[in-house]
Amino acid sequence: MDYVYGPGRNHLFVPGPVNIPEPVLRAMNRNNEDYRSPAVPALTKTLLEDVKKIFKTTTGTPFLIPTTGTGAWESALTNTLSPGDRTVSFLIGQFSLLWIDQQQRLNFNVDVVESEWGQGANLDILAEKLAADNAHTIKAVCIVHNETATGVTNNLAKVRKILDDYNHPALFLVDGVSSICALDFRMDEWGVDVALTGSQKALSLPTGLGIVCASPKALEATKTAKSVRVFFDWNDYLKFYKLGTFWPYTPSIQLLYGLRAALDLLFEEGLDNVIARHSRLGKATRLAVEAWGLKNCTEKEEWYSNTVTAVVIPPYIDSSEIVRRAWKRYNLSLGLGLNKVAGKVFRIGHLGNLNELQLLGCLAGVEMILKDVGYPVKLGSGVAAACAYLQNNIPLIPSRI
Amino acid sequence: MDYVYGPGRNHLFVPGPVNIPEPVLRAMNRNNEDYRSPAVPALTKTLLEDVKKIFKTTTGTPFLIPTTGTGAWESALTNTLSPGDRTVSFLIGQFSLLWIDQQQRLNFNVDVVESEWGQGANLDILAEKLAADNAHTIKAVCIVHNETATGVTNNLAKVRKILDDYNHPALFLVDGVSSICALDFRMDEWGVDVALTGSQKALSLPTGLGIVCASPKALEATKTAKSVRVFFDWNDYLKFYKLGTFWPYTPSIQLLYGLRAALDLLFEEGLDNVIARHSRLGKATRLAVEAWGLKNCTEKEEWYSNTVTAVVIPPYIDSSEIVRRAWKRYNLSLGLGLNKVAGKVFRIGHLGNLNELQLLGCLAGVEMILKDVGYPVKLGSGVAAACAYLQNNIPLIPSRI
Amino acid sequence: MDYVYGPGRNHLFVPGPVNIPEPVLRAMNRNNEDYRSPAVPALTKTLLEDVKKIFKTTTGTPFLIPTTGTGAWESALTNTLSPGDRTVSFLIGQFSLLWIDQQQRLNFNVDVVESEWGQGANLDILAEKLAADNAHTIKAVCIVHNETATGVTNNLAKVRKILDDYNHPALFLVDGVSSICALDFRMDEWGVDVALTGSQKALSLPTGLGIVCASPKALEATKTAKSVRVFFDWNDYLKFYKLGTFWPYTPSIQLLYGLRAALDLLFEEGLDNVIARHSRLGKATRLAVEAWGLKNCTEKEEWYSNTVTAVVIPPYIDSSEIVRRAWKRYNLSLGLGLNKVAGKVFRIGHLGNLNELQLLGCLAGVEMILKDVGYPVKLGSGVAAACAYLQNNIPLIPSRI
Amino acid sequence: MDYVYGPGRNHLFVPGPVNIPEPVLRAMNRNNEDYRSPAVPALTKTLLEDVKKIFKTTTGTPFLIPTTGTGAWESALTNTLSPGDRTVSFLIGQFSLLWIDQQQRLNFNVDVVESEWGQGANLDILAEKLAADNAHTIKAVCIVHNETATGVTNNLAKVRKILDDYNHPALFLVDGVSSICALDFRMDEWGVDVALTGSQKALSLPTGLGIVCASPKALEATKTAKSVRVFFDWNDYLKFYKLGTFWPYTPSIQLLYGLRAALDLLFEEGLDNVIARHSRLGKATRLAVEAWGLKNCTEKEEWYSNTVTAVVIPPYIDSSEIVRRAWKRYNLSLGLGLNKVAGKVFRIGHLGNLNELQLLGCLAGVEMILKDVGYPVKLGSGVAAACAYLQNNIPLIPSRI
Repeated sequence: MDYVYGPGRNHLFVPGPVNIPEPVLRAMNRNNEDYRSPAVPALTKTLLEDVKKIFKTTTGTPFLIPTTGTGAWESALTNTLSPGDRTVSFLIGQFSLLWIDQQQRLNFNVDVVESEWGQGANLDILAEKLAADNAHTIKAVCIVHNETATGVTNNLAKVRKILDDYNHPALFLVDGVSSICALDFRMDEWGVDVALTGSQKALSLPTGLGIVCASPKALEATKTAKSVRVFFDWNDYLKFYKLGTFWPYTPSIQLLYGLRAALDLLFEEGLDNVIARHSRLGKATRLAVEAWGLKNCTEKEEWYSNTVTAVVIPPYIDSSEIVRRAWKRYNLSLGLGLNKVAGKVFRIGHLGNLNELQLLGCLAGVEMILKDVGYPVKLGSGVAAACAYLQNNIPLIPSRI
Repeated sequence: MDYVYGPGRNHLFVPGPVNIPEPVLRAMNRNNEDYRSPAVPALTKTLLEDVKKIFKTTTGTPFLIPTTGTGAWESALTNTLSPGDRTVSFLIGQFSLLWIDQQQRLNFNVDVVESEWGQGANLDILAEKLAADNAHTIKAVCIVHNETATGVTNNLAKVRKILDDYNHPALFLVDGVSSICALDFRMDEWGVDVALTGSQKALSLPTGLGIVCASPKALEATKTAKSVRVFFDWNDYLKFYKLGTFWPYTPSIQLLYGLRAALDLLFEEGLDNVIARHSRLGKATRLAVEAWGLKNCTEKEEWYSNTVTAVVIPPYIDSSEIVRRAWKRYNLSLGLGLNKVAGKVFRIGHLGNLNELQLLGCLAGVEMILKDVGYPVKLGSGVAAACAYLQNNIPLIPSRI
Repeated sequence: MDYVYGPGRNHLFVPGPVNIPEPVLRAMNRNNEDYRSPAVPALTKTLLEDVKKIFKTTTGTPFLIPTTGTGAWESALTNTLSPGDRTVSFLIGQFSLLWIDQQQRLNFNVDVVESEWGQGANLDILAEKLAADNAHTIKAVCIVHNETATGVTNNLAKVRKILDDYNHPALFLVDGVSSICALDFRMDEWGVDVALTGSQKALSLPTGLGIVCASPKALEATKTAKSVRVFFDWNDYLKFYKLGTFWPYTPSIQLLYGLRAALDLLFEEGLDNVIARHSRLGKATRLAVEAWGLKNCTEKEEWYSNTVTAVVIPPYIDSSEIVRRAWKRYNLSLGLGLNKVAGKVFRIGHLGNLNELQLLGCLAGVEMILKDVGYPVKLGSGVAAACAYLQNNIPLIPSRI
Repeated sequence: MDYVYGPGRNHLFVPGPVNIPEPVLRAMNRNNEDYRSPAVPALTKTLLEDVKKIFKTTTGTPFLIPTTGTGAWESALTNTLSPGDRTVSFLIGQFSLLWIDQQQRLNFNVDVVESEWGQGANLDILAEKLAADNAHTIKAVCIVHNETATGVTNNLAKVRKILDDYNHPALFLVDGVSSICALDFRMDEWGVDVALTGSQKALSLPTGLGIVCASPKALEATKTAKSVRVFFDWNDYLKFYKLGTFWPYTPSIQLLYGLRAALDLLFEEGLDNVIARHSRLGKATRLAVEAWGLKNCTEKEEWYSNTVTAVVIPPYIDSSEIVRRAWKRYNLSLGLGLNKVAGKVFRIGHLGNLNELQLLGCLAGVEMILKDVGYPVKLGSGVAAACAYLQNNIPLIPSRI
């Protein structure tokens, strides 16, 4: 039984972990298998080939590491950098902060570029730093594609352009945890060197796979990277890739079959359709927030995130009361405000295997909660605004035409 | 994989089969078992004891028959009546029609009391018929508690009162398919002789169990009932009840464990709370319909159903287009209008393991579809009306207080 | 949790319900669906087409009835015969007895041909009866292909030959509950008019589908068959087949997807390979029984069953003690002796999704139990005999070559 | 579907990952949840409390890390030691080798004590080294409780005794990957400082949890341990333990509920009964090996492992052919010989949720395979030897008495 049962489905609108579609649950509903039999390598081979598509890369090398996003970060850094290496990293919210903290604890020399929470990475400062770095002391530019704490999407194409403008050889490392499979991401076109995500985000699996993809340049960097690593060492994977057995240690059979099913669903829907769906969900959410008379934590449209919206509430309300009430009264799971924006924002995650009517149920719930906590919302206003947009924009489900 | 995949969850709002809660899916996710081992009788014993609670009976004898609602009907009739027996039966919609058809094909002499579709059973005529039946030629009064085609709930307490007023010995047979576990139902208090439901309705299981409960008077009637029956014969069950092995033929192990989980969830929520939740869902739906400027197929408030609402649409729209669009564009499953009301109504089922935000997502979807098909609905209006009511009436989830 | 837990897997060797393979469990692990959406008819259409293959028929019409084998029997009889019709039926064990009992309770005039339990149907007497029946008073010959109580397989080809020899128009009705998908069965070639099985037998699904197939002649017979039927009426199905919606009442969505998966597995293995596998399992079991110095309940080799073996034990042992011990000490489920052979035989079911090593584990267990109850078995003897045969006969798994 | 399907159940006898019991599969068959809701900490709290019981500790602090055994090793080392620290580590097989390799790559100064593969750790040399280490340069003694490659169980009580004899303060770090929950393990009594296992071993879960338990002395050591660590840093966990939210990053909801179910099953059976069951399985396997005339890779009885048996085969046979054939013909998964014993041994894993009849099916299979590859085994001999022992020693299943 569930640990704390409530009738009907839980409405899961945290920005991860997200809803797992039934075909994926089914695929994972299985006994363990011997991962050294011929079956598991055969399966793994298809996964490694197909997972490249979600990064939009043909030249990258993927790793399916039994870990979380935090571990995937560590793998990206320790395989490509040496202690003391200078990185430029952007502090724009809780998750970029945690990554920077990790970089510091791993003994890199982190050049932090801070912005107000709600703003995107300050790329002008990146340009300045690169311009000044004739000696190429900057070894890596580390950026979170989508800051999950504030709902801010950074412009990766622009980062690449700046690197190119200065002809700078720094590695380009991207946390795509709440973006990949949901937002437009183009590893090869944007010259990203390491990109990563976690299985429980837009891929809509359980937690447990850190999915990392390395460019040829990143693989080259492993040869000189002196950071200590064993569990996260890509070379151990590469050794087993060559052997054709693929796994340096035991993978989760269930997650492998689950990933197979998740990829199949993404490809059946079409990756571009998936991204378009997230765009609809993001836009609909923002229209509702506007209709409620509330502010988006994200300051400018250029940074709007299609996977998570952080909603700023008036100072007389504690946003954690909204999250608590959502769970206690409506079986709705919303995201808390974190750190600097704790108590000030709550977050609606709208990523992964999700459709418009699910979101509208959530938005209706948020309206009632806002009223519960004393905010003078006009009930139905957000849903109306979202519907006005969605009714014009939802396509027919291709398989049902 | 699903046969025709669409992203996100299917919004299942037909009036059965309904959403299965995860704890029930989990309980059924199991291999077969030997039903002659000591384990299955031990499990069965708890089920037979506990299933009586959903009928609110202490004196009834339940049967868990591997069949559907149609089979449960057949079991109720053939175990208690003989060919040629006169029954009074109320024709108020498609499901009462089908039951009457079955009664006729089983060679009973059916005295049909017809009402307009959208009205409840005409109990005045019942009173007249009973008054005139001094010879007690009427052997059974057969009534559908909740007519699923029109969303009409009949007043069973009143049926009992009329029977008592005329001191009439006719059996009182009730189809509770879309009522039991959702609407107020009191087998003992109302002197119901046979009541029945199907597992895929408010119990929120898969199809496959016809759940029938017989009063002592009904069991007595089996002794003289001459209708031919083998598969549906209660006596075969009673024989195995006495032996303590319980099953005359092979039950579905999965459904037994599923029923155990479903009952546990109902009792954890509290049967009265479950009924109150259905009352909220019904009321919220009707408020939305009203806000849309549409008519409820149910003519009077006394017959309003808390498990299904049939919505009448203007003659220039074909309601089956609404149902088609719901499925093709919004991954929403609505009920068609059937027979006399085909094309004229669509149905929103709101029964089983369902909560308010799920319903609100459905209502938002219906608004968009109404607009799609050319009905001038004000988007957000129905959701607003429903929320205004719900926000004042939803209790905290007891386990989360 | 399981109702009575024991460590490790339960060894399920009753002759049904049998082990469900994981791919089938996975396919059934799903929410309900609207069976009136376009998805379910599309799925159903493939099932009806493919299920004919397991009957080896191209001209038959299949019905997937939400019921058990007992219900499938009732459907076969009531759709094709009228009360008072004369049937010839063979009493050779508990399941043929139960079918005869049903025929009698359905008011047919049953001409019972009895054999000793352990013998097959006496077809010489059938020949005599047909020879004497110039008036064609015999309307149907009813025979159990494989008597599950004694492990006796009847010769259906010979029944057809006798019918043909006398040019007799009687319908040929076959209970294939413990044979179809496991033993050689040829509906068209043998001119079977109705054949049926249950989902929980060799198809390796949960209980809940009575799968019935009717020849054109059987369908023709429905037009004059006066037996009362509603739930089991094939005509209701045929009406919905024509409409393309397929279902007169609610099917189990889970069993439909499960059946799809079960058929896929059967076809992947190859139906002839499946039958050959059962032949190996049957032979291995009989060799073990012989090695133990025990007798097969089946008297002659021509009747040996490849799906169940009834083992006769010495009179100083009560066979139900063997079954009890199997379950209490070894987590092994064996079949009891029934009725005339109660206490005298125990049964090993070896049908469905089962492989040789599973059977050998069971046989090793039986040896220990025999010793437990005082029978002087040589431990290892049965397994050795079975292995000697199997090691020469098991083919490579085709998908793994 | 399975990636490479074979009929019947796969017989999984690699020494991990092992069979997952159905109640655990069921518990994990669920959607994601918000791990910041009150439900997940409440669940986690019970897990942290109960997981201590499998280590037999009351003073230890457990960590449930989303990683594999390899990651758990890394966590044990980096949290307690500093680069350059001297460890004593025993090389007795492939898994101790890999751990030593990790220690070296993490820049510890590893004092390797090597034995022949098939022998246990040479504790005399440990004694010598401790005796000579008045300066306490040895910071940790690292030992694999059960070497999975050779089936050798080391004597941990004796390690503690030696440490005590020399009053040596070195940390005592134990890899219990293939021992904990299967072999007798006593963290507090033996003064183990860090012990660890992986979820896919005797706990019978999928891969994905590294379960680590630290003594107060180990926790104290973290304060001075200078090894670089972020993902594996226990302090991040301890910080969240204090907050009562428990998770520094996203856990797998499914594995948490699965662990709850796995612990419930272990406690229902009784941890001591579980250990006794493994003892029976180990003994039965060794008796079979002896009966086949083959040698156990483990040289002396004192080192016999009750979780895995490595079987030495004659030089004219390649053991990998045995493993290949097992999978291709018998749907049986055996363990390969690794590294020094590649081609020379094959391994039978007999740990986790497994019962005697499952093992006997495996042993019968191995006999046939041995014959397949040209070894002159007497079919049935191993099974007979195992049965002779088991039939005298298997207890009744407590819940079924």
